[in-house]
Amino acid sequence: MTSAPHALFGKIEHGLAGIRLYGIAPPKAASEAERVREIAAQQTARLCDLGPDGLVVYDIQDEPGRSGEPRPFPFLPTVNPDIYAYDALAELTLPKIVYRSVSAQPRDVFSDWLDSVRRAGDRRLTVFVGAPRGRAQAPGLSLHEAYELARAVPNLVVGGIAIAERHLVKQDEHQRMLAKQDRGCRFFITQTVYDAASTKSLLSDYALSLHASGRPAAPVVLTFSPCGSVRTLEFMKWLGISFPRWLENELRHSADTLERSIALCETVFLDVQHYAREKRLPLGINVESVSIRKSEIDASVELYRRLRARLDE
Amino acid sequence: MTSAPHALFGKIEHGLAGIRLYGIAPPKAASEAERVREIAAQQTARLCDLGPDGLVVYDIQDEPGRSGEPRPFPFLPTVNPDIYAYDALAELTLPKIVYRSVSAQPRDVFSDWLDSVRRAGDRRLTVFVGAPRGRAQAPGLSLHEAYELARAVPNLVVGGIAIAERHLVKQDEHQRMLAKQDRGCRFFITQTVYDAASTKSLLSDYALSLHASGRPAAPVVLTFSPCGSVRTLEFMKWLGISFPRWLENELRHSADTLERSIALCETVFLDVQHYAREKRLPLGINVESVSIRKSEIDASVELYRRLRARLDE
Repeated sequence: MTSAPHALFGKIEHGLAGIRLYGIAPPKAASEAERVREIAAQQTARLCDLGPDGLVVYDIQDEPGRSGEPRPFPFLPTVNPDIYAYDALAELTLPKIVYRSVSAQPRDVFSDWLDSVRRAGDRRLTVFVGAPRGRAQAPGLSLHEAYELARAVPNLVVGGIAIAERHLVKQDEHQRMLAKQDRGCRFFITQTVYDAASTKSLLSDYALSLHASGRPAAPVVLTFSPCGSVRTLEFMKWLGISFPRWLENELRHSADTLERSIALCETVFLDVQHYAREKRLPLGINVESVSIRKSEIDASVELYRRLRARLDE
Repeated sequence: MTSAPHALFGKIEHGLAGIRLYGIAPPKAASEAERVREIAAQQTARLCDLGPDGLVVYDIQDEPGRSGEPRPFPFLPTVNPDIYAYDALAELTLPKIVYRSVSAQPRDVFSDWLDSVRRAGDRRLTVFVGAPRGRAQAPGLSLHEAYELARAVPNLVVGGIAIAERHLVKQDEHQRMLAKQDRGCRFFITQTVYDAASTKSLLSDYALSLHASGRPAAPVVLTFSPCGSVRTLEFMKWLGISFPRWLENELRHSADTLERSIALCETVFLDVQHYAREKRLPLGINVESVSIRKSEIDASVELYRRLRARLDE
C-alpha cells in the first residue's frame, strides 16, 4: 500500500493527478513530552499502514473565523509543526508538507528557517498560508514576500492554498492561483470540500484561465474531512467551509452522521473528479479529521481508503 | 406515446411522481389572426406527437427582472393565455394548465373568470402567479385572496409556483409551499432549473417540514429549458434563473451550446431526481423553450423526450 519513494515529488514535478495525502495537526503545546511521543507513535503506525504519498502537518493559528462568530472550540497552541514533523515523526520517512503561517512570523525567523532548509539539502515541502481575514496588519511577511524569498532555496517545494468559498464571493481565486504559480507555487491544497458546485466553479475558471494564458495546470489536492456531529459541523462552518443546505440537512437529520458524511464526501469527490477529468485538471486528495475524537479519526482513515480507491479508478 | 386521458388529474390527486408537461407562451397579441392559427396548428401537431400529460400556457407579464437590469428582449403583450388555450388550441384535448397573474387583474375580472369556470363544469387547471418583485402595490388580488376565492370552485385544480432561487436567499420557500397547500394548492411548478444544489436544498427543507407537520407531499414539477446562445443565457439570468458558475462557463465556452445545455439539463434532472426519490418526493417535469427560435424549440422537444425517458426509469 506504500507509494514508491518520492512518488509525491514526481507527481508535483510533472503536474500529475493522483496525489494522496493525509493531514494532521500537531499535538497541543501543553501536552507532556511522553504524551507527544505516544501520539507520534500512534500516528506513525496509522500512516505506515495507510501509505499516503505524503503527510500534511497543519500550522494552527488562533485566527478569527470568517463569520466573526466566537470560536466554538477553545484555541490551544500546538507544538511547532516543523519540529513535530521532523523530530517527533522522524521515524516516518514519508515526505512531509508542513504548513507555515508566514504572516505570523517575523522576517528573520522566516529567513533562518529558509537557511536551515537550504543547509539540510534534502527536498522539503511546505504550504505558505497568508494572513487570516481581518488581520491584514499581521506582524510577519506577506505571501508575496514569502514566495520571493523561497525562490532562492531550490530544494524547497512550495504549495499554496486554494479556497472555493472565497471564489464564490470574489470570483478571483483562479487569478490568485495563477499569480502564486508565477511566484513558484507548484501545487494547491484546498480547504475541506463539502460543496461540489463551488469547487467545480473554481476549477472551471482555473482551467479557462490556464488555457487562455498557455500555462500548465498544477495539481489541485482536495481536502476532505468526516463530520461526526452537529458540533463538528458548526466548527467547520465557523472555519469557513460551505455546506449546501440540503447536505447540511442530511448531516443534521441522519441517524449516523459520521457514516453519512463519509458517503457524502465520496459523492462530492466523484462529482468533482468527473468534472476535473473532463477538463484535464490533475486532482489529488488530502484527508484529515478536524476533530480529535477517535471515531472521527477512524472515519478519516476509512474515508481516505474509499477516496484513494476512487482516485485509482 | 399519449398518456391515458386524465392521467394528470390522477397523478395530482394521489400526489404521484411522473407528471410530464410541456410549456408554451401564447403568440404575441399583435400577430395576425391567420398567424395565430398557424402557430396553434403547429403546436397542436407537436403536442399530439409528444403526448405529455398536460400543456402549460404561461401568462407573460412585463415584470421587472430580479436584478433591476433592463430587459434584454423587448416585452410584447401576448394573446390572453386562457383564450389561446381554450379557443385557438381547442382541438388539442390535453388538459391545459393556464397560468394566471392574479396581481395583474381586478377582483371583478377574477371573479367573472371563476364563475365561467364553475359554469363550464369540466375540470380546469391553473397556476396562480403573485405580484412580481418590486410591484407589491399591484392593482389586482393577492395570492392569498385568489386561493381563498378559488376554493369555492371545486372543478378548478390550482397549482403554485416554487422558486429554489428565492429559497437560497430567504430560506422560507418551503414554508410558502406549505401555506399554499393549506389554501388549496395541489401541485407546484418551478421556474427553469439549472442549479441542482439549490433545487435539492428547497426539496430538502420541504421534505423535512412535511415530515414534521404530517402533511402529504404535493407533486413538484421541475421546469427545464434548453439554452442555445449566450443571449438566451443572459435572458434566463435576467428572469432570475440561477446558473452555477461552472455550468455557465460550460455554456459560454461550448462549441455547441444548445446540445451542451440539453446534456446539462439531463444531468441536473438525474441528480435532483435521485435525491427526490430518496426523500420520497413526487417529481414531475415541464419542458419549455424561453426562446422562439426554431432550433431551441426543436431542442425543447428533444429535451422533453430525454427527460421523459429518465422519469420512467
